[in-house]
Amino acid sequence: MSDKMQRVVLARTPEGTPVNEDFALQTQPMPRPSQGEVLCQAKYLSLDPYMRSQIAGRHISGSITPGDPMLGETVSCVLESKAEGFKPGDLVRCFGGWSSHSIHTPKEMFLLGKDFPAPSLALSTLGMPGLTAWAGLHCLARIKSEDTVVIPAATGGVGAVAGQLAKACGCQVIGIAGMTQKCRQATEVLGFDACLNRRDENLGEELDKACPQGIDVYFDLVGGPMLTVASERLAEGGRVLLCGLISEYNSSERIAGPPPGLWIRARAKVFGLVVYDFEDRRQEFLKEVMPLYHDGRLKPHEDIIEGLASAPEAFCRLMRGENNGKVIVALS
Amino acid sequence: MSDKMQRVVLARTPEGTPVNEDFALQTQPMPRPSQGEVLCQAKYLSLDPYMRSQIAGRHISGSITPGDPMLGETVSCVLESKAEGFKPGDLVRCFGGWSSHSIHTPKEMFLLGKDFPAPSLALSTLGMPGLTAWAGLHCLARIKSEDTVVIPAATGGVGAVAGQLAKACGCQVIGIAGMTQKCRQATEVLGFDACLNRRDENLGEELDKACPQGIDVYFDLVGGPMLTVASERLAEGGRVLLCGLISEYNSSERIAGPPPGLWIRARAKVFGLVVYDFEDRRQEFLKEVMPLYHDGRLKPHEDIIEGLASAPEAFCRLMRGENNGKVIVALS
Repeated sequence: MSDKMQRVVLARTPEGTPVNEDFALQTQPMPRPSQGEVLCQAKYLSLDPYMRSQIAGRHISGSITPGDPMLGETVSCVLESKAEGFKPGDLVRCFGGWSSHSIHTPKEMFLLGKDFPAPSLALSTLGMPGLTAWAGLHCLARIKSEDTVVIPAATGGVGAVAGQLAKACGCQVIGIAGMTQKCRQATEVLGFDACLNRRDENLGEELDKACPQGIDVYFDLVGGPMLTVASERLAEGGRVLLCGLISEYNSSERIAGPPPGLWIRARAKVFGLVVYDFEDRRQEFLKEVMPLYHDGRLKPHEDIIEGLASAPEAFCRLMRGENNGKVIVALS
Repeated sequence: MSDKMQRVVLARTPEGTPVNEDFALQTQPMPRPSQGEVLCQAKYLSLDPYMRSQIAGRHISGSITPGDPMLGETVSCVLESKAEGFKPGDLVRCFGGWSSHSIHTPKEMFLLGKDFPAPSLALSTLGMPGLTAWAGLHCLARIKSEDTVVIPAATGGVGAVAGQLAKACGCQVIGIAGMTQKCRQATEVLGFDACLNRRDENLGEELDKACPQGIDVYFDLVGGPMLTVASERLAEGGRVLLCGLISEYNSSERIAGPPPGLWIRARAKVFGLVVYDFEDRRQEFLKEVMPLYHDGRLKPHEDIIEGLASAPEAFCRLMRGENNGKVIVALS
């Protein structure tokens, strides 16, 4: 075993959209597990928009300041175990961070079942993004087959799963994405009924055409003006899932929300969604979506980058909206 | 019976806060009921903030343009009936408008039960404002005794009932009002635990002190910046009832809402509340609140003005926030 490990730290607090130089790759001595601890080697690292909030110091999970290692969920392999229940070779899900190796106690790790299809999926379709999509649609919005569901960031980590789950439920599903190519993927690969281009000048009119009865469920992953455009078109009894704010993660200002009168008129139900609250329902989620995965109705949509050193650029790409699916770093 | 009736029409669309000259009192020939109709004489007329939206042409119930008679709910007395089930002397609740007399078909009228305590209450504590308060707290927010409930416009038609219903449920109830005298009434007469002055420069800090565990339920009757101040202080799992926008009824602009991130962080549930949707639960409401009224835990809080000719000025006072309780016009 090497006596060195690598990790990525925040070099400086980004201004606006992050750039490579905001991060630094460091080599450190390999950590050793104490009694009751496990040394893990990361296989896959999840990169997510919420990390932009962490490094801005305003995420509910805490702040990352310059010099701190970047945090993040990983699928890791147990290298050395001084804890009961874990042995070398076991695959676990844990918060290993942007790091080749990490030390964990048992309660910080979750074993991937032997029947788990592919390890990276524990960070994407069958992981936190999938759980987010499922919790929003089924636990909060309680979608029904007659609903028209609108999903911005349609091909992103959460959006791609949300769209497919809503289709599996029989809903009319309209995506919104920022590039023609993503729109095509949403309809041709992920099965959305339609996908509109966010940059279309007539987006409101296009939405009206795509949702002639109004929007029943708006799964907000972007915030900003799009939330108001959608709220203006809510059907009576419409539900709004407030889940992400990618449109403003790169800004230091909080953008105001839609005029409340729009939600009064629609008798809207609006839910603040934080996936951590649904951790205790992960097994239920897996039980429901695993059959959809196996019969092909829930397709993975991953954007996999090789090597920890590529993580900063992959994250910057994500924050520029140039990713193509759930962003995951594959480590050696 | 006189052969003349009086009514108030909209003389012109108000700019900003309405003034007397925006309305005109008219004398008209007395209408005659056709077969299947009833002639009613108004006893009490309800004046409500939503009427400001009607005359601005943007209320969900429809628009009133210059020359149109003003609409509104009344308690009226049957004068002449050509419809089954109604006889002279019967008291009914109907939408008689700002008018001494009105014609209705049976399905537009609701008989006041013989045991109904006092007719004006059918427009206030035991009427639509009461139903609004009850529906918001019990049907949507589902208040529990451990909740801290914050109510702006604390001494208004809905606020006064909401505060008392929340107290009856065992909640900690904090009001907000625009005058010292109203604050005193909220605590001394209506039983609020505290009532803060909206104009207090340190309102945010005062709210923090009054709600050390955060706000569990915010019954929004005003919109505007206050909604953001309250949303910043929501407890985890907090509920927001979007019900009124009095802060912007006099403006032609829609004011943006709170940054959605506040609601994500709180895992808020936000409900658009329109009282019409709860009409079918009015009996259930009355059954629950009537005992509170009879044992003194639900006190009427009415601001009664005499004479139809006074209705315009009473409405203008209401829209300036100078009313003292639910505004009702008593007709001769």
